[in-house]
Amino acid sequence: MRQTVTAFEVHDVRFPTSERMDGSDAMHPDPDYSAAYVVLRTRDGAEGHGFVFTIGRGNEVTAAAIEALRPHVIGRPAPRTAQDLAALHRGLTHDSQLRWLGPEKGVTHMAAGAVVNAAWDLAATVAGLPVWEFLATMTPEELVSLVDFRYLTDALTPAEALAILRAAEPGRAERAARLRAEGYPAYTTTPGWLGYDDAKLVRLAKEAVADGFGQIKLKVGADLDDDVRRLRLARDAVGPSVRIAVDANQRWDVPDALRWMAALAPYAPHWIEEPTSPDDILGHAAIRAGQPVKVATGEHTANRVLFKQLLQAGAVDFVQIDAARVAGVNENLAILLLAAKYGVPVCPHAGGVGLCELVQHLAMFDYVAVSGTWEDRVIEYVDHLHEHFTDPAVIDSGRYVAPRAPGFSARMRPESVDAHRYPDGPVWRARRTLTEVTA
Amino acid sequence: MRQTVTAFEVHDVRFPTSERMDGSDAMHPDPDYSAAYVVLRTRDGAEGHGFVFTIGRGNEVTAAAIEALRPHVIGRPAPRTAQDLAALHRGLTHDSQLRWLGPEKGVTHMAAGAVVNAAWDLAATVAGLPVWEFLATMTPEELVSLVDFRYLTDALTPAEALAILRAAEPGRAERAARLRAEGYPAYTTTPGWLGYDDAKLVRLAKEAVADGFGQIKLKVGADLDDDVRRLRLARDAVGPSVRIAVDANQRWDVPDALRWMAALAPYAPHWIEEPTSPDDILGHAAIRAGQPVKVATGEHTANRVLFKQLLQAGAVDFVQIDAARVAGVNENLAILLLAAKYGVPVCPHAGGVGLCELVQHLAMFDYVAVSGTWEDRVIEYVDHLHEHFTDPAVIDSGRYVAPRAPGFSARMRPESVDAHRYPDGPVWRARRTLTEVTA
Repeated sequence: MRQTVTAFEVHDVRFPTSERMDGSDAMHPDPDYSAAYVVLRTRDGAEGHGFVFTIGRGNEVTAAAIEALRPHVIGRPAPRTAQDLAALHRGLTHDSQLRWLGPEKGVTHMAAGAVVNAAWDLAATVAGLPVWEFLATMTPEELVSLVDFRYLTDALTPAEALAILRAAEPGRAERAARLRAEGYPAYTTTPGWLGYDDAKLVRLAKEAVADGFGQIKLKVGADLDDDVRRLRLARDAVGPSVRIAVDANQRWDVPDALRWMAALAPYAPHWIEEPTSPDDILGHAAIRAGQPVKVATGEHTANRVLFKQLLQAGAVDFVQIDAARVAGVNENLAILLLAAKYGVPVCPHAGGVGLCELVQHLAMFDYVAVSGTWEDRVIEYVDHLHEHFTDPAVIDSGRYVAPRAPGFSARMRPESVDAHRYPDGPVWRARRTLTEVTA
Repeated sequence: MRQTVTAFEVHDVRFPTSERMDGSDAMHPDPDYSAAYVVLRTRDGAEGHGFVFTIGRGNEVTAAAIEALRPHVIGRPAPRTAQDLAALHRGLTHDSQLRWLGPEKGVTHMAAGAVVNAAWDLAATVAGLPVWEFLATMTPEELVSLVDFRYLTDALTPAEALAILRAAEPGRAERAARLRAEGYPAYTTTPGWLGYDDAKLVRLAKEAVADGFGQIKLKVGADLDDDVRRLRLARDAVGPSVRIAVDANQRWDVPDALRWMAALAPYAPHWIEEPTSPDDILGHAAIRAGQPVKVATGEHTANRVLFKQLLQAGAVDFVQIDAARVAGVNENLAILLLAAKYGVPVCPHAGGVGLCELVQHLAMFDYVAVSGTWEDRVIEYVDHLHEHFTDPAVIDSGRYVAPRAPGFSARMRPESVDAHRYPDGPVWRARRTLTEVTA
């Protein structure tokens, strides 16, 4: 008997992270990590949790965009199968009036992603499997049916996608077992926030190596002299064999990126991430062609059409999917398939609130059933805010431990949601009172 | 004495246009033309009006995004000069937390555009000039200062922009006089909505020619046989010398567009508009290269970075700016300059609610002070909803009459705002009552 979705709850949850410069970069000096959070419920108590990650102001706009999707979900059967999840994804992204607000980009698209991901959490939970494994139980035909191929067929047809998935089918069980035993490679951004001083950078970089990470990442892009000094300090701290990626968070124009990376190249950065606008396909291609460091981008890439072009143009060496910017699992599956078609490794973006928790499932599924390899692949890890989740991401010796609990690891603790509710939760009320007292 | 902005009002205004299929196309069968509408006021009674055009559901999300910008405007000096308007534009588009929600795309970017445009309406009104003329009184240096060149300098530097504007400076007065005397060329989309039957199409196409239009436009993309028949009927109705553009509203993948346009090409369409995803730069380039009809796009192009690439890639024959999708006058000025640099004509998108009113100012300014020509240029006109504006766009013999009233022609009649307020205005209350009675 199919259950109906009887509740659709939307919460504005914010953490005052800007107070400690956690998460600071060249374009976002003062983020308050936040989630526009949605919970679906059925009468028999099944739940699905999903969210958009934001960095503070505007989280209420994103919550309003999730709210606008309520009629697509409430009172309808709870999705359980690939067919259900495909239909929900298409309904949310092709609403004939809402699509004008994107199309398929920005707040409304991220909101669709939150609801799609909540539906995956619900369906996987009901199936008793973590999302990565739930996906890996689906046939190639079911997986292809989840993808919206609109605007993709000049680069990837359904038949080509099917061939990719069929080629990876034989080794699924073996790779799943290896994943459970060894975990998935991770790197850490914890040492490298732009607001940290040199001593903190060096200390955290050494700790990262001691903790077993083979790669760290530094934020760059505000001041070239500072960046050269910080990269040199980090290189001295970790030694020549640990990879150091650098991340400009969209700070540069193309000529800036070429000049800056020429200065940083002697310290052998592993990749330059987000050197310029996430919309600038041709700019990334020019940067990749014009300097020696490999190029990575994707956390702000709005949808599969832009990812398609990054690959068509040969603009990137690494595709950085984000679990909460595009329209959920379905669109990320499209991107994983595009990357596999073009032979480009996927190295997911994470951090923020709950992004590690979500994206690990997608990378692990990619390993088991799409690309079939973790060679040159690594998931970002940031050691922030995991304590607010009921099934937090776990790192062991620099690797993500494969989740075993059913669902998408997306559930925030109810007491964390209540405490950080904006603007009326106790964490924010206390801050307002403090401001009023000191004013 | 500088006035302060003392009121920032946001209204959700919707028109039930879906009831008559006005505005229906292959991707948007049932639009309710709407505006997320903002009014700025100073204590001495100066006003600035701006809006985002949407097609119904989600207008409340856009209104929430405008609301999120209130702290950037309220209690601050009302912008009057190029310097003020440059600072406001940068403040709105570079808010360090809000930019995560785009960056520079979707609902939050359109909201910034509404507020920027409201500020232009206010400043031009205070100056006693229509916006096109207000812009045309600024020096090349002032105009360049309005543009955010971030992400543009690989295609257009400030020095190049200055050279373009200086080259057009000598003829400004003469062209302004000609514009006042002759108006600016227009084309009409009124005959071609997809929901209209053949008889209505033929009747309206003949009326358009009788009214002096040299170009009409037909929506296509839902069914090839229907499109061939409708294009043939339209061609028979208007004769061989009137241009017929066709518009697929993003319906196709690249291979579809090539096949479809091969079938329509014998009827000599003037351009194919929005053949595929507005994000697909490389797709538009492939379509332009792969069939004989000229390619136009831009109404859904999210920002100047994507326009830059359309031009760099040689993907379009016509750039279709929209007054209410990018971040207002400032970003459209960037796009006009890019188009001038690449020698591509700008043919603005209009229609909707108030888009004709706004965009005429930008095209006329382009003629007077940027490109210096109206050769191959034409502004869209749709004969809908003008009665709701205090200074409606006026067409005479197929040409836009140059506005003479101060401001941006952006002001909706207060009684129209009140009547169409969603969900509580009388127009919507009456419809709900009707639904309840007939249910």
